[in-house]
Amino acid sequence: MPDAIPADSVGLVTPQIAHFDKPLTLACGQTLASYQLIYETYGTLNQDASNAILICHALSGDHHAAGYHDMADKKPGWWDSAIGPGKAIDTNHYFVIALNNLGGCCGSTGPTSINPETNQVWEADFPIVTVEDWVESQARLADLLGIQTFAAIVGGSLGGMQALEWSIRFPKRLKSAVIVASAPKLSTQNIAFNEVARQSIRRDPDFFDGRYLDNESIPTNGLGLARMLGHITYLSDDAMGAKFGRQMRHEQYQYNYGIEFEVESYLRYQGEAFTKRFDANTYMLMTKALDYFDPAAQTNGDLAAVLSRAECEFLLVSFTTDWRFSPVRSEEIVNALIKAGKPVSYAKIEATEGHDAFLFPIPRYMQAVNSFLTRIADQVMPPSSQGESEHAR
Amino acid sequence: MPDAIPADSVGLVTPQIAHFDKPLTLACGQTLASYQLIYETYGTLNQDASNAILICHALSGDHHAAGYHDMADKKPGWWDSAIGPGKAIDTNHYFVIALNNLGGCCGSTGPTSINPETNQVWEADFPIVTVEDWVESQARLADLLGIQTFAAIVGGSLGGMQALEWSIRFPKRLKSAVIVASAPKLSTQNIAFNEVARQSIRRDPDFFDGRYLDNESIPTNGLGLARMLGHITYLSDDAMGAKFGRQMRHEQYQYNYGIEFEVESYLRYQGEAFTKRFDANTYMLMTKALDYFDPAAQTNGDLAAVLSRAECEFLLVSFTTDWRFSPVRSEEIVNALIKAGKPVSYAKIEATEGHDAFLFPIPRYMQAVNSFLTRIADQVMPPSSQGESEHAR
Repeated sequence: MPDAIPADSVGLVTPQIAHFDKPLTLACGQTLASYQLIYETYGTLNQDASNAILICHALSGDHHAAGYHDMADKKPGWWDSAIGPGKAIDTNHYFVIALNNLGGCCGSTGPTSINPETNQVWEADFPIVTVEDWVESQARLADLLGIQTFAAIVGGSLGGMQALEWSIRFPKRLKSAVIVASAPKLSTQNIAFNEVARQSIRRDPDFFDGRYLDNESIPTNGLGLARMLGHITYLSDDAMGAKFGRQMRHEQYQYNYGIEFEVESYLRYQGEAFTKRFDANTYMLMTKALDYFDPAAQTNGDLAAVLSRAECEFLLVSFTTDWRFSPVRSEEIVNALIKAGKPVSYAKIEATEGHDAFLFPIPRYMQAVNSFLTRIADQVMPPSSQGESEHAR
Repeated sequence: MPDAIPADSVGLVTPQIAHFDKPLTLACGQTLASYQLIYETYGTLNQDASNAILICHALSGDHHAAGYHDMADKKPGWWDSAIGPGKAIDTNHYFVIALNNLGGCCGSTGPTSINPETNQVWEADFPIVTVEDWVESQARLADLLGIQTFAAIVGGSLGGMQALEWSIRFPKRLKSAVIVASAPKLSTQNIAFNEVARQSIRRDPDFFDGRYLDNESIPTNGLGLARMLGHITYLSDDAMGAKFGRQMRHEQYQYNYGIEFEVESYLRYQGEAFTKRFDANTYMLMTKALDYFDPAAQTNGDLAAVLSRAECEFLLVSFTTDWRFSPVRSEEIVNALIKAGKPVSYAKIEATEGHDAFLFPIPRYMQAVNSFLTRIADQVMPPSSQGESEHAR
């Protein structure tokens, strides 16, 4: 809990809900007759609605990206270090929108929502959603908010895939895309890890084939396992080593299956904590959205060909110790953009934190994002239109 | 099933069992009053018992390293490609012993054996065994077979840890150690993966706290998951990519939780097959033995200091795409040996197979092992003592 809201915070924020009654046909073929998206905004939309930035979240993210919901909150939103007045994504200049994606479990329509056709909770019957579906629904949210063109669409990991998809699907609706620690599609190993995570959940008898709420149950064992495994892939070997090493719980080995090494305790805790805040069916959906994403499939695997549709500027960021989506994966996008003749900046950031680095305010990373967005601001909001705030960095 | 036994095979082999009635006190403090080890031998022990090689197995290995048990066998032993007449570990010159370690589930005393004190199956009551315990029990097997000094002790992965431990614990009982794709201790990430594997098993309700046989049950879901996860860490990202890529099961995405990508099918199959041949309690024990191994802990983390006790020659081998025990981990041992002034050869082998490469007959790898062992043969068995077989490579 902050004693006082920090000066560089967006402050107290209240989530808002947008209802959509226009049916949405998903990639899987099913149609959602109606749905809602929960979102938050930070900063002020300017008169010509040219200063909007959309934040796309990753696997377990949500709409609460910055600020506090309550003075009693222990922590601010998940990307508070990057979003706020004077921060990398500067709310003195930009109007920032963060939403919970369709299929989520934090207020947008998803497996824990009521299916209006049955008046039952959707649970496992909620259709599989894809990155394309998310981008479609985000575009409708933009319509509702009166935003024709985003100054930037920003995301890390699975969020970066959404930014990439935006550039292909709605090339005229964004001036720039900031794609951090992402990939143009999952590798075989990435899919394999996702499959183990899904099997962990599915094999938990408390999962009840995805109808656990109906059965007054929660698959905490399986979802916890999936999160433990995920955590290993989010952290670098170095970061885990630096944080825990072979640090023991007791002075001597106990020679049993209790905690011997602190890293075991950390993983068990992370797994358990996650089950208290996240829905297993949503987790399953998110892993599938990752698996399915492969925009180059439309152009016979030629990423440059599909990216030739893009009309925005790109910033790609990768982190040296990220082995989930290594720098090589970002460079596939960079090289394809260069081949397609698109304007792209690329920052490969030295970082020890592995894939998780995208959530940390690493100075060179934050500077790279800020410099890029400042340049975009100069294009979309000539200094005269930027109001009273100083813009002389 | 071979139509005929290949000429370079050790042929039909029969496992043997050695009983030990001298109590063995384990690192954990518990004592086994008696136990048995199952083993196989290939080649002929020479008169002065100077040509013996011990093969130490890895996590899921056993005593059946080479040859066939039956003409109907579909496959030979797990390291048949390396052991046989004219092969890297040449049975024309060497007498090779392969055993199943204590705690195993293939015939040596372990969780599936009867506890003589209770006349019940041990199951989860079987004590935790360590690399040190294995080396101790292997030395007793050597005593029984009349082998004072091994020409070489050879192992990959967890097997390499046993060879390393031999060099420290019984420096006078081996002329050389061949340590392949191994590490001087697990990294934090290695421990973390093991913990997820153990939790997968423990959280399976069919595990019954390790007393599943008593409950006429087998934790196939949890053990299968552990194996799926293990498999990902044995293979390189590149190898998985080359083998499966994003190869789909159907022409179009099905948008469900069935098999979409062939790698999912492969993993499920590998997991299931493993549960038919391996015991979950043994799997748990093996992961603990890996976790606990850390010989440098005796010398305040100074690996060179503990290795200064060694008196043998070393061959270290690593594989470029192994990310479970990367070349850097082998190089920790190489550098410590150099610091300790010990004779060490090191081969870093280009291989696409990841950690699993240690099981493949990669020519440069097999040549490195063979050249090293030929040099050792010249030392321990002067040409005149090597019998009729030609030894002029």
